[in-house]
Amino acid sequence: MLTYQLPERNKYYALYVALRGDISRGKLAAGEKLPSKRALAEHLGLSVITVQTAYEQLLAEGYVLSRQRRGYFVAEVNAGKATAAQYSVAPAREKEEYAYDLCSGRAPSRLFPFSVWAKLMRYTLAEEGGHLLERVPCDGDWALKVAIANYLYRFRGFAVDPRYVVLGAGAEYLYGVIVQLLGREKPYAVENPVYGRVPRTYALNGARCSLIPVGDKGADVEAAENSGACALHISPSHQYPTGAVMPADNRSRLIAWAERTGAYIIEDDYDSEFRLFGKPLQTMAGMNGERVIYLNTFSKTLAPSLRMGYMVLPPVLYARYRALYGESANVVPLFEQKTLARMLDGGYFERHVNRLKNYYRGVRALLLEKLNSLNIEKQIIETGGGLHLTVRLPDFESDNAIKEAAKARGIKIKCVSDYLLTADPRYDRIAVINYSSVDKDTLTGGKNET
Amino acid sequence: MLTYQLPERNKYYALYVALRGDISRGKLAAGEKLPSKRALAEHLGLSVITVQTAYEQLLAEGYVLSRQRRGYFVAEVNAGKATAAQYSVAPAREKEEYAYDLCSGRAPSRLFPFSVWAKLMRYTLAEEGGHLLERVPCDGDWALKVAIANYLYRFRGFAVDPRYVVLGAGAEYLYGVIVQLLGREKPYAVENPVYGRVPRTYALNGARCSLIPVGDKGADVEAAENSGACALHISPSHQYPTGAVMPADNRSRLIAWAERTGAYIIEDDYDSEFRLFGKPLQTMAGMNGERVIYLNTFSKTLAPSLRMGYMVLPPVLYARYRALYGESANVVPLFEQKTLARMLDGGYFERHVNRLKNYYRGVRALLLEKLNSLNIEKQIIETGGGLHLTVRLPDFESDNAIKEAAKARGIKIKCVSDYLLTADPRYDRIAVINYSSVDKDTLTGGKNET
Repeated sequence: MLTYQLPERNKYYALYVALRGDISRGKLAAGEKLPSKRALAEHLGLSVITVQTAYEQLLAEGYVLSRQRRGYFVAEVNAGKATAAQYSVAPAREKEEYAYDLCSGRAPSRLFPFSVWAKLMRYTLAEEGGHLLERVPCDGDWALKVAIANYLYRFRGFAVDPRYVVLGAGAEYLYGVIVQLLGREKPYAVENPVYGRVPRTYALNGARCSLIPVGDKGADVEAAENSGACALHISPSHQYPTGAVMPADNRSRLIAWAERTGAYIIEDDYDSEFRLFGKPLQTMAGMNGERVIYLNTFSKTLAPSLRMGYMVLPPVLYARYRALYGESANVVPLFEQKTLARMLDGGYFERHVNRLKNYYRGVRALLLEKLNSLNIEKQIIETGGGLHLTVRLPDFESDNAIKEAAKARGIKIKCVSDYLLTADPRYDRIAVINYSSVDKDTLTGGKNET
Repeated sequence: MLTYQLPERNKYYALYVALRGDISRGKLAAGEKLPSKRALAEHLGLSVITVQTAYEQLLAEGYVLSRQRRGYFVAEVNAGKATAAQYSVAPAREKEEYAYDLCSGRAPSRLFPFSVWAKLMRYTLAEEGGHLLERVPCDGDWALKVAIANYLYRFRGFAVDPRYVVLGAGAEYLYGVIVQLLGREKPYAVENPVYGRVPRTYALNGARCSLIPVGDKGADVEAAENSGACALHISPSHQYPTGAVMPADNRSRLIAWAERTGAYIIEDDYDSEFRLFGKPLQTMAGMNGERVIYLNTFSKTLAPSLRMGYMVLPPVLYARYRALYGESANVVPLFEQKTLARMLDGGYFERHVNRLKNYYRGVRALLLEKLNSLNIEKQIIETGGGLHLTVRLPDFESDNAIKEAAKARGIKIKCVSDYLLTADPRYDRIAVINYSSVDKDTLTGGKNET
C-alpha cells in the first residue's frame, strides 16, 4: 500500500502532491489501480473525505481516471514522463474513421454565414481604418459591449447594463479570469457529470474543485449548500450531458445560498441559443445580478476559430475586475470585436441562429426517426434545450457495449458516464446523442446504412 | 501592533491572508503605514523573512506599496471595499494633460503600416475564405509558427524548431500559461525594479514572486541562485527600466543554475527589435534551448490592439503544454494569425521595424540634444537597446522633485524608483526617459518650450 509521511495540516494537499509526484515520475504507472478511498484512509490514518478530496483533485487535473464501480486508475500522463531523450512531439493520435460523430460540439463549418461575415469585415476595415489599431480597454470595445447587452435583452429578456459586460478569448479564458477574481482558497463547485474542460480549466488555474451530483433537476441543491464553495458553476437551462433543466424553486434556493454565504453562481449559458422549441428559459443572472455571473460564448454559434466569449459581472466583481485588469488591453483583436458588433446590431446574428435552429430541427427529426426505428428497449430523454438528447438503453450489458455497437455501425458516441468524474450509478447505460456536428445531407444519404 | 494567531505551518501565507483581509475590509486604511518587518516579526514571534515574504506577496498583488526608506503602506484597494450600495463604476481617473509623455510604451499609432496591414487582410480574406473558420490548434496556426521561426532566425540568429513556437493573446496571457506549466509551489523570481505587470500577472495567476535585485549587469546572479525559484523571469538584452544588459558570463552562470536545479529562465525579449545601433544581442534561449523559455510580443512593434505574443518552449515543456492544452483552440483569431504570417513572410514586418528604428533614432537624437542643453548636473545612462534611457540627476532633492520639475514643463516622467517593488538606494534620483510614444513632429515643433 502507498505510504506517505504527511504533515499535521493540509493533509489532503500533501497527499495530492505526493500522489501526483509518484504519477509524474512513473512510480505509479498508467493503468495502475489506486487503493480504494477507504483502504488508503485507514492505512494512512486519514479520514475518507481527505483521501477523496485528494483523489478528486487528481481527477480534475487528469492524473487519474475514475471507472464506475471499479475505482480510481492512474491516467496516461505524458508531461511528467518526458525526458531530455524524448524530444520529439508525439504525433496526433490516429483518427478513427466514423460516418457519424455524435460527440463533437462543433457545427459543420458550411453553416457559418461566411459571406455575411466577410462583407462585414470589409465594411469594418473600410470604415474604422486606423482606429482598429487603438488599444482596447480591458473589458472590450464599448460598441460590442452595448451590442451584446442589447442582444441579451432581445433574445434572453435579460436586462444588462453594458458596463458590466466583459469580453474574453473564449469561455476557458473567462473561467481563468473568474479564478483571479474569486481567489483560490475555497473550492469551485462543478457539476458531475460535466463537460470535462470546466473542472480541468479551474484546476489549471490553480483552483480546487468540488463535485456536485446532478439529478433530473440539475445540480443537487443540498450538495451545493454543503460545498463550502466560493462559486458554483452550473448550466441551469440545459445541463451537459444530462440535459437536465433546473426548476425555478431550486434556482431560488441556490441564489439564497449564494446570498447567505457570499458565494457566486457562475451561470454557464452555453448552448441556450439552441432551445429548438419555445422561448429560452429565464436566466438566473436575471433573477439576481449581484450573486450570479452570466457567461456565454460565440464559439458555438459562430465559428470555433473565433475565440470570443463574454460574461456579465455583478457590479462588485466588475469593480474588482477593473482594479486587477484596468491597465491591461483586452485580448480579443478589435477587428473581430467591431465586426461582431455589426453582426449583432444588424440582426445578422439572430437570423443566422434562426437558420441554425431550423437546420437542427431537421437533424433532430431524422435522428429521432432513426432512433425510434431501432428494435431495442430505449427511453429517450429530451428536455427541449441544446443540441443533444440522451437515451437510456437498459438492454445493453454496459456502456462499453453501447459504444461498441454504435462503432460497428460507424457511429461515434459517448455515454453520460464518460462525463462523470466520480461514479454515479444513476447514469448507467445512457448514451449521449450530440447532433451539433451532424451534416443533415450525410444523414439522409446514409439512411440505408443504419 | 497587529496581532494575529498564526498556525504552525505556512505562516507566511497565513500572515498574508490575515493582512489582506484587514486591508480588504478597510480595517487597515489606505495610506496607513505597516509595522516594519523587524518590528512585526518580533511582535509575532516570526522570522523577518516570513514577514518579508508576506509583505512581498501583498506588494506584488497591489495591496501595499513600498516607499523607499519609509517602509510599507496600505494601498488604495477598490474591490474589497465595494459594497452593495456602491454599485456605480468608478469614473476613469482624470487624465492630466502633458505635452510629452515619457512613460508610455505605446508607439504613435500613425507609425503603424495600416495600408499594408489592410491590404494583407483583404488578401487573407479573399484567399483563405471559409478556411478562416477552422479551429486553430492550441499552439497556433502552423503557417504563423513557421513564419515566426524563420523571422527569429533571420533577425535574431536564433534557430528555432517551429513546432515549439506557441502563440498567445499577448505577453501577460503567456505568463499565465507558464504558471500553468510550471506550477505554483515554488516562487517565480522577477527583477526589481521591473515593469509592474510582470509580478502582478504572476500574482494574479496564483504564483508567488521573489524579487531579484538588478545591478548594472542585470539581475543579480547570486540572488537568483539562492531564490529557490522554479523560474527566473528576466530581460537580459535590455532590462526595463534600468536598461542593464547582462554579460555573457552571467548568462552562463544562470543557465548553469537552471540546469542544476531544474529551474527555467524566462527570457522576456520585449523591446529587442529596437536595438537602434548594431545587431541585437544573442538570445539566452539560443545558448540553451532546454532551460530557457523565449518570449516576445508584437504588441509593441505592430499595434497594441493586436494582442499577439509568442513563446518558444523547451521541448519537454512543449510536451507538457500539449498535454494540458491539446484539446483547446488557440485564443488568437485565425484571421490575424494568417495576416501576420503574410506580413512576416513578405518582409513587410522587417521593413516596418527598420522604418521605426530610423524614426526613433531621430527622436533619440532630438531628445539627447534637449537633455544636453539642460543646465543641470546629469549622467545619461544608455546601453544601446530599447526605446528608453535613464538619467541620473544628483542635484535634485528627491525623485518627486524630478517629476515635479518635469511636470512644470509639461513632461510626464517616471523614475526608476517607481518600478521598484522594494526599496533599493542605488536607484535614487534616476529618471526614466521612455521615448516609445513620442511624436517627432511635436518634439521639433515644441522646441521653444523646453
